[in-house]
Amino acid sequence: MTVRASGDEGRKGGRARLSGVLAPVLTPFREDLSPDPGRFVRHCRWLLSQGCAGLAVFGTTSEANSLSVEEREALLEVLLGAGIDPARLLPGTGCCALTDTVRLTRAAVRAGCAGVLMLPPFYYKGVSEEGLFRSFSEVIERVGDARLRVYLYHIPPVAQVGFSLKLVERLLTAYPGTVVGMKDSSGDWNNTKAMLDAFARSGFDVFAGSERFLLANLRHGGVGCITATGNVNAAAIDRLFRDWRAPAADQMQEELNAVRGAIEKHPVIPALKAIVAHHAGDAAWRAPRPPLVELPAPQVEALLADLRWLRFEMPGLPT
Amino acid sequence: MTVRASGDEGRKGGRARLSGVLAPVLTPFREDLSPDPGRFVRHCRWLLSQGCAGLAVFGTTSEANSLSVEEREALLEVLLGAGIDPARLLPGTGCCALTDTVRLTRAAVRAGCAGVLMLPPFYYKGVSEEGLFRSFSEVIERVGDARLRVYLYHIPPVAQVGFSLKLVERLLTAYPGTVVGMKDSSGDWNNTKAMLDAFARSGFDVFAGSERFLLANLRHGGVGCITATGNVNAAAIDRLFRDWRAPAADQMQEELNAVRGAIEKHPVIPALKAIVAHHAGDAAWRAPRPPLVELPAPQVEALLADLRWLRFEMPGLPT
Repeated sequence: MTVRASGDEGRKGGRARLSGVLAPVLTPFREDLSPDPGRFVRHCRWLLSQGCAGLAVFGTTSEANSLSVEEREALLEVLLGAGIDPARLLPGTGCCALTDTVRLTRAAVRAGCAGVLMLPPFYYKGVSEEGLFRSFSEVIERVGDARLRVYLYHIPPVAQVGFSLKLVERLLTAYPGTVVGMKDSSGDWNNTKAMLDAFARSGFDVFAGSERFLLANLRHGGVGCITATGNVNAAAIDRLFRDWRAPAADQMQEELNAVRGAIEKHPVIPALKAIVAHHAGDAAWRAPRPPLVELPAPQVEALLADLRWLRFEMPGLPT
Repeated sequence: MTVRASGDEGRKGGRARLSGVLAPVLTPFREDLSPDPGRFVRHCRWLLSQGCAGLAVFGTTSEANSLSVEEREALLEVLLGAGIDPARLLPGTGCCALTDTVRLTRAAVRAGCAGVLMLPPFYYKGVSEEGLFRSFSEVIERVGDARLRVYLYHIPPVAQVGFSLKLVERLLTAYPGTVVGMKDSSGDWNNTKAMLDAFARSGFDVFAGSERFLLANLRHGGVGCITATGNVNAAAIDRLFRDWRAPAADQMQEELNAVRGAIEKHPVIPALKAIVAHHAGDAAWRAPRPPLVELPAPQVEALLADLRWLRFEMPGLPT
């Protein structure tokens, strides 16, 4: 079947579109490297309390590609069972294998999630626009559900495979109301701006992949950011999202950049886990799954010193 | 547990190590893009009849990363059910997720496969040697079976994540008799030679990732090649493997290179599928799974014309 719904229908539909600050939620692991549902739920609740508009669970920062399909499905069930509103969830569902992407996307739609954040298949490099179009087309047709909202996940520094303007245009033309937005983690503002210029007016919701570009993104018609550091600094990022028209906006942006800069001196995922571990007083938070490794103690000390100097805090973090 | 067995024990063990020509077997798909077990088994049998020493099923050429874990497991069961000797099988089992790699590797060991060809986790780029060491270590420890034989799959042009000499050395030191070889698909003879110089004498079996390097590899202590074009040209490649000390060896190598060169003018996987489709008189063979696309008809014609000029044949291919 072909799912078609105009952008306007999507806007007017029962569910509001996501905007604001979303965190690609860190995945805590137990000592045996299995995902830790208890810490995961507590962290999700804390993020929502901090002003996160939504939870982009199973993203790059979540180490989702280091999890099996079953592990992701089980964690989604845990969140739903804990009463987290699925309208706040934007799970990552894009895998290398078409059948895995279909399975995870179907589960997200059935759970009532706000949408899915979909990586392109990322094993083969240099694939054609036609091949990528067919990948997304097959998933959308197989899921075959008018409730599906696909956000394209553009992160060429990691996935190496990304979305050209032409590919986005083909997908929007073929699946209006289904392909509804993008997370641009290219780290290249010119690319984000090109996406905004081309598609924002027709209802394509562009999230910056870093709060560094939040103000610029909002000024050019974007709708927010989905950012790794949202895991630790969501309240401040959300303040800029709310007050971006205020005179102090540029100053707020600079303060966000300073915190991000301190974190980006280190491998970001282990650094974020170390920050949560420290502020929660819970060393178990530190461990990533291989191939990532925890931040070594001297780097943790340097990172925490930088953050203290910036008066960084994580109020109300569950311990 | 820690699996330790000396290289000699591995050599003397019940099962001989693989050497010669292995094909990373193409995966045929039905019209609905599901794997086609019938065509798969027939192709595997033909490859063995052509002189393939083994079948590296579920490799890059097999589009294995475009298959779910369940689809790979089911195809392995099909091969075993069809009576293919597991001692001839070297399935690819390396995934992004530790738990997936463990599951597939365990299944291969239990099935009695000669070994597994293991990609490193390939989503995160620029990961540390320590992180990669832990990835392999976790898999080996969790599988915990002295029958396990791991061949490291080095293919940086695609996976982007590869194996340094230092990492190989650490793995060999920690798991002698378990980490037993490598497929080097770097396309860089200097890298293959460095691996051979460092480790071949201690029983590390290096397969070139292309028959272009077969003669050089054998002359420097390597044991064969695992090559995409083995899917269509195994008999000729095997002749060079058997006669590499003959005066005609360089001429044979040149002839192999000519066939490979004709195929490499095109995207290799769709080109190989087009060749099989033509020679089997079975158009269904042409289709890859997205994100790959079938070779367009004009390119198929050009490819077949090049091959006719080279007097290329596929005798006895099941139709």
